[in-house]
Amino acid sequence: MKLKEIGEFGFIERFKPWFEKLVPENTVGIGDDCSIIPVTNEEDWVITTDMLIEDVHFLRNAMTPKQLGYKSLAVNLSDIASMGASPVGSFLSIAIPSDLDVEYLDKFMQGYHQLSEKFNVPLLGGDTTKSLKHLAINVCVVGKCKKGLAKRRNMACNNDIICVTGILGDSAGGLQILLNNLDRNNADHDYLLKKHFVPEPRLDEGQFLATFEGIHAMMDISDGIASDLVHILKASAKGAKIDLDSIPVSETLQKVAKQQNWNIMELAIGGGEDYELLFTVDPAKKQEIDEAYFARFGKHIIPIGKIEQSAPQIMWFNNKQEVIMKKGGFNHFA
Amino acid sequence: MKLKEIGEFGFIERFKPWFEKLVPENTVGIGDDCSIIPVTNEEDWVITTDMLIEDVHFLRNAMTPKQLGYKSLAVNLSDIASMGASPVGSFLSIAIPSDLDVEYLDKFMQGYHQLSEKFNVPLLGGDTTKSLKHLAINVCVVGKCKKGLAKRRNMACNNDIICVTGILGDSAGGLQILLNNLDRNNADHDYLLKKHFVPEPRLDEGQFLATFEGIHAMMDISDGIASDLVHILKASAKGAKIDLDSIPVSETLQKVAKQQNWNIMELAIGGGEDYELLFTVDPAKKQEIDEAYFARFGKHIIPIGKIEQSAPQIMWFNNKQEVIMKKGGFNHFA
Repeated sequence: MKLKEIGEFGFIERFKPWFEKLVPENTVGIGDDCSIIPVTNEEDWVITTDMLIEDVHFLRNAMTPKQLGYKSLAVNLSDIASMGASPVGSFLSIAIPSDLDVEYLDKFMQGYHQLSEKFNVPLLGGDTTKSLKHLAINVCVVGKCKKGLAKRRNMACNNDIICVTGILGDSAGGLQILLNNLDRNNADHDYLLKKHFVPEPRLDEGQFLATFEGIHAMMDISDGIASDLVHILKASAKGAKIDLDSIPVSETLQKVAKQQNWNIMELAIGGGEDYELLFTVDPAKKQEIDEAYFARFGKHIIPIGKIEQSAPQIMWFNNKQEVIMKKGGFNHFA
Repeated sequence: MKLKEIGEFGFIERFKPWFEKLVPENTVGIGDDCSIIPVTNEEDWVITTDMLIEDVHFLRNAMTPKQLGYKSLAVNLSDIASMGASPVGSFLSIAIPSDLDVEYLDKFMQGYHQLSEKFNVPLLGGDTTKSLKHLAINVCVVGKCKKGLAKRRNMACNNDIICVTGILGDSAGGLQILLNNLDRNNADHDYLLKKHFVPEPRLDEGQFLATFEGIHAMMDISDGIASDLVHILKASAKGAKIDLDSIPVSETLQKVAKQQNWNIMELAIGGGEDYELLFTVDPAKKQEIDEAYFARFGKHIIPIGKIEQSAPQIMWFNNKQEVIMKKGGFNHFA
């Protein structure tokens, strides 16, 4: 049997049960953005890891080494953000093909360091090895949060308002610029490319949101909400209604999508790599949280739909009419 | 400039200083088998990560998937052992080429699980992704130990006795069986191959040794003592004399090395992947520790030389005559 027949999550389900009896009480293992390990009476630790493979996750010639170094850490910090935790340190493994020179690696490390410094995350260890062909990068980040305050995927409640922290689809638009080999000197294209290459992990936003009990489930948007929200729905045994008119998209993406005849909603809900936060809010607390969030960040949380008591799937609405969205999130083995 | 001109450790030295000011007090970052992070007044955590790349670290057709799964975790548990710590949980990232079927992956996970169960180490998370050509595996293991008790490379003292926990070179002999395509049905060859494919991480031994103040520096033998011991010497600013007559080798390796005309000392000191522990002992405490170790494990610690106040290099002695050993440890970019 080939892996693409069962997919990434089908594979994980095959071995996950073997390990469950080894997982201590109060420890959260496989299945969320991070695992959660109790360390003291006041603190939990959260740990995440992500692998980036050349020609699968990135094209070496399409992005600068500095962007690649930055993004390798950013995608992991985004997972820490999604728990509402703060990063403690990172671990970088890198398998290096022999045609890569030291100057490339220096720039890679500069990008990695730039983001490390911004969020005060020390690089505490790793592994450096040879690769025959493809550059392979694995980053593991350890974070911490107040005991029991980590936000998980299984916490969505009926009638929760589903929100995101920012606009969706720009990163997917940037990827289309790359794949279609469009003019990179065009300012609009450059904006979309930067959103693809240099995503901002929402660490401050995640830590702030996690202080509110009225925030229930939370995760980061790495594969697109069409796929990511389903993880929340399955873990919480809920359904969702999403109002496509509410999906926040940038004016630049609207403009370029029109020029290029792209389906903007496919990019916004199925494109992924936005690294905004997706979370559900107690409707009675939404206004209070939004006001506090606006006071802190000068921007609003953005409601896009509602959690419902139904099967774990998304119903999409456009102009109050239910519509069918064919494009799913990114599946590595499809 | 190509990486092979500066090597793995030269590369690390280029960026290590950038991160040093981000490392909090009492935290140990890059440069030991594990990083050490204080978590409570009683406990430190240690974290290690290792990457295995197909055709660099292993040949897919030369070992069973079960052995590969086992070894992927074993090499990381060996790093935890070398600090004298106990494992808390593991994180597995795996990049999977499309020609690999699910049955292969099931067996890989069986091997990983077998060792996880033996040492009660839950798999707590990871990442599963696609690879275009080579199977790439990254494992990260978190462990814990009593505060301040982790054994480090920089703790060797003048006149310390240098010891190992077991025989050396069998794994390198197994690799030679593979590389020279020798008969795998021969019982001696099979023994050496098993030592190469299924190394035993010395977790119990490491935790036991770490309870003694008289044990100073400690690390695991992954690249061969000719290379690994130099890490202890550089970190501790000491030299060492090694008595080649004392290097423990198996009768099987002696027999096969004679048949195949191998230089047995090159295999024993430079071959690597033994995953025994290498440590230095206060000479006044050596007998007491050895007796306790023998009572616990039914085997002795094995003295192979002595720490000296000199430049951080190894002087090799054979029949009390100084000799020159040309073969160094394994360097990934040589």
